[in-house]
This record gives sequence, C-alpha cells and structure tokens, in this order.
Amino acid sequence: MGEKPLQTSIATSDEQRITVRGADLTEELMGTLDFGEFFYFQLTGEMPTDSESRVFNTLLVTVVEHGITPSVIAARLTYDSAPEAVQGAVASGLLGAGKTFLGSMQDVAEMVQDGVSRIDDGEPSDAVARDIVAAHDRLPGFGHPEHDPTDPRTERIFDILEAEGMDGPYLEFIHDVQDAAEEQFGSRPLINATGAIGVGVSELGLDPLVARGIALVSRSAGLVGHLNEEAREPMARGIWDVVEENVDYRGEP
Amino acid sequence: MGEKPLQTSIATSDEQRITVRGADLTEELMGTLDFGEFFYFQLTGEMPTDSESRVFNTLLVTVVEHGITPSVIAARLTYDSAPEAVQGAVASGLLGAGKTFLGSMQDVAEMVQDGVSRIDDGEPSDAVARDIVAAHDRLPGFGHPEHDPTDPRTERIFDILEAEGMDGPYLEFIHDVQDAAEEQFGSRPLINATGAIGVGVSELGLDPLVARGIALVSRSAGLVGHLNEEAREPMARGIWDVVEENVDYRGEP
Amino acid sequence: MGEKPLQTSIATSDEQRITVRGADLTEELMGTLDFGEFFYFQLTGEMPTDSESRVFNTLLVTVVEHGITPSVIAARLTYDSAPEAVQGAVASGLLGAGKTFLGSMQDVAEMVQDGVSRIDDGEPSDAVARDIVAAHDRLPGFGHPEHDPTDPRTERIFDILEAEGMDGPYLEFIHDVQDAAEEQFGSRPLINATGAIGVGVSELGLDPLVARGIALVSRSAGLVGHLNEEAREPMARGIWDVVEENVDYRGEP
Amino acid sequence: MGEKPLQTSIATSDEQRITVRGADLTEELMGTLDFGEFFYFQLTGEMPTDSESRVFNTLLVTVVEHGITPSVIAARLTYDSAPEAVQGAVASGLLGAGKTFLGSMQDVAEMVQDGVSRIDDGEPSDAVARDIVAAHDRLPGFGHPEHDPTDPRTERIFDILEAEGMDGPYLEFIHDVQDAAEEQFGSRPLINATGAIGVGVSELGLDPLVARGIALVSRSAGLVGHLNEEAREPMARGIWDVVEENVDYRGEP
Repeated sequence: MGEKPLQTSIATSDEQRITVRGADLTEELMGTLDFGEFFYFQLTGEMPTDSESRVFNTLLVTVVEHGITPSVIAARLTYDSAPEAVQGAVASGLLGAGKTFLGSMQDVAEMVQDGVSRIDDGEPSDAVARDIVAAHDRLPGFGHPEHDPTDPRTERIFDILEAEGMDGPYLEFIHDVQDAAEEQFGSRPLINATGAIGVGVSELGLDPLVARGIALVSRSAGLVGHLNEEAREPMARGIWDVVEENVDYRGEP
Repeated sequence: MGEKPLQTSIATSDEQRITVRGADLTEELMGTLDFGEFFYFQLTGEMPTDSESRVFNTLLVTVVEHGITPSVIAARLTYDSAPEAVQGAVASGLLGAGKTFLGSMQDVAEMVQDGVSRIDDGEPSDAVARDIVAAHDRLPGFGHPEHDPTDPRTERIFDILEAEGMDGPYLEFIHDVQDAAEEQFGSRPLINATGAIGVGVSELGLDPLVARGIALVSRSAGLVGHLNEEAREPMARGIWDVVEENVDYRGEP
Repeated sequence: MGEKPLQTSIATSDEQRITVRGADLTEELMGTLDFGEFFYFQLTGEMPTDSESRVFNTLLVTVVEHGITPSVIAARLTYDSAPEAVQGAVASGLLGAGKTFLGSMQDVAEMVQDGVSRIDDGEPSDAVARDIVAAHDRLPGFGHPEHDPTDPRTERIFDILEAEGMDGPYLEFIHDVQDAAEEQFGSRPLINATGAIGVGVSELGLDPLVARGIALVSRSAGLVGHLNEEAREPMARGIWDVVEENVDYRGEP
Repeated sequence: MGEKPLQTSIATSDEQRITVRGADLTEELMGTLDFGEFFYFQLTGEMPTDSESRVFNTLLVTVVEHGITPSVIAARLTYDSAPEAVQGAVASGLLGAGKTFLGSMQDVAEMVQDGVSRIDDGEPSDAVARDIVAAHDRLPGFGHPEHDPTDPRTERIFDILEAEGMDGPYLEFIHDVQDAAEEQFGSRPLINATGAIGVGVSELGLDPLVARGIALVSRSAGLVGHLNEEAREPMARGIWDVVEENVDYRGEP
C-alpha cells in the first residue's frame, strides 16, 4: 500500500482532537502558550525557550503599528467600500507588503543568511559584505524616509538580542554590510526595522520566508486595529476628499 | 486654527519615536509585551491584566491551525504560482474568512452582544434566545462538519474563561441560544470554536469586528507556516494533479 | 465505472486543443469574437447576437473608469509598495467592489429579478415595488454622491437597451421601484449606473452574480490603466503625503 | 497659483459628464466601442485601428479560459467560504498571476522590448538573443506543462499578427531567442501563449506592465464564469474532499 501523494508535517484533526506538530492543540497548547510561542511552535515543531519567546514576540510586535501608512489607507478605503467583508480590507492592506516596504524583511534575511554561509565556507567577511553591497541596486534593510539618524526599533531589537544571548553572526554581518555600504556610498546608512527583523529571524534559525511572514502577521493585527477604529470613527471618506482636492486632470493623452 | 480633517487615536511617529496609544513603542512596549498583549493594547489603549492576556492569547491561538483547509489550499496554490509575492498567497488564503467559516466569529459576537443588550434592557433571556434562533437561517457559531459531539476547542475556551473569572453574561447567553436551538430543531447543536471565540471577544468587552480580526491574524500565522513548508516540501502541484484527475468536462452547455 | 466527482461545463484542454463550451478556442473563437463576446459565450455557452454583443460590451465599458476613486487609490498605493506584484495591486483595488459601491450591481440584479418573478406570479407591480422599497434600509442602484439630477451612464444604457429591443420587464420594474421610492421618501431618487447595469444584466438573462462580475472585469481594466500611468508618472507618494498632512493624532485612548 | 500635487491624464468627472482621455464617456464611447477597444483607448488615449482592435481583443481572449487551473481552484474554494464577497474570490484567483504562470507575460514583454532596443542600437540580433538566454535561469514565455509540440494559441496569435500586418521586430526577435535557446539547450523550446501575448503587446507599442494587465483582465472574466458555475453547481466541497483524501500527516517535525 503506497503512501498518499500529499504530505504535511504541520497538523491534522479528527472528531475530538486537533494535532499540531505532534501535540494536542486543546490539551497541551491552548492556554499554555501565548500566540507568539504557538506560532513559533507551529513553524518549527519546537517549543521556544524563554529567550526565543521574548525575541520572537518582540519581532512580531515591532511592525504592527506605524500610524497612517499606505497599507492602512488602502485597508480603510476598502473597508468603507465593502464593510461586509473585513477579510478583503485586511487583504487589501497586506498586499502592500512587497519589495518597497515590509516585504524586504525576506530579502534582508536571505542576504545575511547567504553572507554568513559564505563566511562559514571560508570567505573573508569584509569581502563578502562588499560583494553584497555591489550586487544590490537598493540594499534591503537600510535607510528610512522618516527615522534619522537611527531607527529606534533597530536599537531596541539589537539590545534584546544581546540581552538574550542571541547576538550572533547575522547581527555581526549586517554591521559588516553597513561598513561596506558606508565605504561605497560615503555616508553610513541606518539599519532599519526590516533589517533588524531579518537579522532576528536569522539568529532564531528561521527561514527568510518567515521574515516576510512576521511582517504579514504583524500588519494583519495593525490593520484590524485601524479597521476597528474606522468602523467607529471613519476617515475613509475624508481621505478620498483630501486626495480628490489635490488631483488635477491634465486632459489627454 | 481649525483641526485637521482626519483623526486617529492609534499611533503617530516622528524621527526618533513611534507612539502607540500614548506609549513609546520601543521604550515601553517592545520586549515588555508579548504579541497578544500588544495587539490588545493597540485595539483598546489599555494594558491587559494577566487574565485578559491569557484569554486573548488563547483566542488568538485557537484557529491558527486546522490542517489542510480550503484557505491553506488556496494559499499554497497561489504561492506556487507567484512565489515572489508571499503577501499575495497569504491574502489569497485570508479571503476565505467569510460567512461560511471563520468570518462567522463576527456574526456570533454581534448575536450575543445584541442578545445580552436586550436582556439588560429587561427582555427575558429565553425569549430573546428563541427570537434569535428564529431570525437566522443558519445560526452562526453552531455545528461543525467534523467535530462531534463537541468541538474540543470550545470546551477549552470555556474552561479558561471560567478559570480567569470571565464566565459572564455572553457565555451564559450562548447556552440559552443552544437551548432554544435544541427546542426548535429537536437536537442539540454543538457550539463550535467560532462561537466560543465570539463569546470570548464579548467577555473581553471588544467589538464584533475584532472577532473577525482574530480569525484573520490567527489564520495569517497559520498560512505563513504552511507556506514555509510549501517552500521546502511542495504539495501545490500534487493538489492540482489530484483535482484534475477528478474533474470531468461535460461539454456544453 | 462511475463518473468523476467534480464536474464542469466550461472548458477542458489536451495537448493541441483548448475547448471552451464545446468550441475550439484557437480555431473558432480567437480572432473571431471580441473580448465581450467571448466572455458572454464563456458564461452562457451561447454566441451573442449583435444586439446582445452591443449591450454586453456597453455594460462592460460603463464602469471601467471614474477617475481617482478609492479603489484606484488603494491600487496605486499597493503598487508603489509592491511593484513586483502587479496582480496584488489590482486585487487590492478590486476588493473594494462591495456593498457600498460596485458590488451593489449584484444586489440590484437580485432585486429586479426577484420583483419581476413575483409579478410573473401574479402580484401587482406597484405593490411589489413598494414592498421592496420598504424591505431595504438602503436601496441598491439608486442615488449618487456626485451625479445629479441623473447619472448620465444610466440614460445611455437605457437608450441602448431600447435601441436594441431589450427594454423589457426589468427596465420597467426599476422605474416602478423608483416611483415607489419617490412616494416613500418624497423625492425621486436617481437610478445610478450600478442600477442600470443590474437591469441590463437581467434583460440579457444573466444571473445576478454576473452583474458583480462585470464590475470586477471592468474595474480590472480600469486599474491596469491607472497602474500603467503610476509606473510612468507616480502619484502614490503624493497621495500618502496629502493624507499625512491632514491627519491628527489625538493621543489616547 | 501653483498646480495641484497629484496629476492624472486618464479621467475626471463632474455632475453630468465623465471624461476619459478627453472624450465624453457616455456620448462618444459607450455603445460605440467594444470593451477591448475602450480598454485600449483608456490605456493609450488613442482610438485603435481595426487591426489594433482585432489584435488587442485576441490577446484579451487568449487566456480567459484554460479549465480547472490553480487560480480557478483557489477562487472556487474562496467563494464557497465567503459567497457574500465575490470580489474576494476573484481577487484570490488573480493573486496567482505571478512569475510561474500568467505574470510572466510582463517578463516576456520586457525581454523582447529590451532585446529589440539593443538591436536598434546596433547590436547583432543573434548575439543579443544568446545574451538573453544566458541571463535567464528560466526563460519566460517558453515551454508548457501540457501543450506539445506547440502551444496552439501561439500559432493563432502569430497568424493574426501577420494577417493584420503587425508581424514586426518583436515577433522576429522571439524566434531569435528560440533559436538561441535551442542552440543552448539542444532542443527547441515551444513559445507558449504568454510568450505570444508578450510579443503582441510589444507589437502594439504597449508597455510590459500592460501584458500582465491583459492576464489579469482576462482571468477576471474567466474566474467570474467559474464562480457563476460554482454558485449553481458547486465543486468546492468536492475539491476539498479529494485533497483531504490524498493528504498524509507525517507527524513531527
């Protein structure tokens, strides 16, 4: 008897039991783990230590909220147009987690994991860092339109990594990249929050895709908070008004 | 000098500070609150008590995972087609959080909050419950295609509500609705996990929209875990194959 | 040998042939039908007459474009954040096709198809119209925030229905609803473009879901045009700026 | 008095007029242009010739339908979960228009437009083609999992381009790329429908983004047809069943 064509290691269920990574959801996990710990367990199949829990929860908290961002604007407008489908408004906002903003967490994690792997294979770290800077038109994880001279979230994440004994090779390497970028561009670019989260995910031993996943889970929560406010105190029509007042139609073509 | 046309109470930022509900994100919240606590704080502006934290985190954990559901299938297929845009795959899966499955949490919360408000205004609870049963074609929060005779997640949530002293009027009322439904239909329908979450959200004093929000945040995490597995051990092409093998084209019309 | 569990009448393919509703896609349809005609054929399995083609194409053209709408704003912001995933930007804009704006086409089509069916069963049309007005908090297909005293698109659609001999019972009935609404509210509400499209879809014998589908296909095209402009002459950052300048953070709670 | 910060050339509206690219929507465009022609006009500001109309409509028809594809599966599952939000089901299906399948039209158009531009600058076409083949891990627009030895849609599009006098440099260049690929890989890869559409868009003088846009508009229509069938003759639960029957849970990790 052959095995079935589709395989998963994550979860299964029957009439009275939901099993996640070999554990009983209701008996062993609900009420015992906080959400961050459960997410870590679902991803890895391992219970986080207290340090892993604190770091992973911190990464999840970092980008929940940054005020009235483009993704919040998109979500609020979509909610106003389709209030019966909150899932659509949240999806609308999440779709902005791409290369320009939040999605870059994945690129950072790939970059530092690739870099550290090359260093582990014997390449000198400064050469690897210079290579990586040269290979990117736009270095993920660096720079910010508002925060200056540092991104305060980065400082905080790096302090917590250190406090929890997770200030390892990825944290060191992103500073090598920062040095190489300064050498290349003549000024020292700041490491932004997506850079710090890419490092944190890597120090936790997680895949780059999880870094983008953290952005998505965090932003989902942030968007739900904004939609809950929108339902009580709407600003979507006001947004539309201020945009319309500022648009000129220039005629053809 | 007039005030600006758009108002928010959630968050703002400047060069060196992100402020959420009056607190400094990096100094006061990151590293101090777990993700569930932070989400609660962003929603309400109030720090959760230990009991509120445990209940809210439990609600967030409950529906992260239920194996290979339709939303997981949609997300995995979308990821296979567009692996460069993980946000699209997650959005694709979230869009299923509608009336049939997870979105019903919002309907349950509306139902019990409406019911308790009528009881508070002096209507007898059994009459209100009968009214509500009669008014619905399909009672949200009851029944499950797989779990039988109870949904184990419901038991666990209700136990935790009781242990944390939050077994209040909404929990009582959903049992009144269950009684009325049994009277009406001749058999006792089980309260499913979405029903229990709708009750839990109401006991926490949160709006019905937050109940759907919990579904969305939870499922985001679940989907990220599945996409992380899909990236390493794909099943999307296998899903497509088993579906195709089972489809007949019947010709026109 | 039993039949397969999944059945479709729409399309199938093999190595050298794609069959749609019994016709050969490449030999019989491509180059012969315009897009509107092909869509009609895919939906119904029937080749449209010239009149049906003109009406269906007109309905598809009607709501492609209305300037810088909320769905366009959402799509442009999403594109700026994730330019590598144009599909996400279009999806983000489409998710606003809900109850408030474009999605109401489906509600109108349901309303007039239900009304005409009751009239066909012998109820007097004015009574049915009054019933329907009374049953709705917000009558779909009536009123417009900008157009006044008529929606010019409605006039045009109704003229074309008449010119093509498709001014049937649904067109008559929406005017009955308009009369009943005037009687009820004391002023005559205008029939907007979504109302006219709901009528047009019904005169073509199509299901209400197709009315929302027309909105989605039309808006997809409109959004693609805006994103193509956004790629060359961006306004997304400018939108964000004008919104930010107009937002006040009111602090907690 | 300065100009407003946001500029568009596409459309504007007032109480009684919607203006698209300088034309009156209701007076000049509705009832006169078919949907494909209108979309072309909205994109370019120019009325298509008969040849341009035939080619553009053909490109729009090509990928509306290919049976039960991953995007159709995702959309049908999403509709079953959230039938109240058809827009979400369509969005869910569109989100698969990425690098692997339909989104590659944009990559093809970029590739041939870049190639022809280099040839126009004096580089020999065979060298450019070899360069391009070498630069891609996976050459967009070539190969198909089902069609063999040719993609019948490609033949048809190329015939129509020729019949309409639009068999220009992009069509020639994609054959150079095909030659270079044959030289490189030892076997001649077929040009698939996305390759042919990327060529067609380029021959029409349109931007690469429009090629992906055509995929999205076409698929929107295809998905609406499938959802209309799903509403009458559902297969979503059957899809879930056949998938579940074929999944094994392997336990941790």
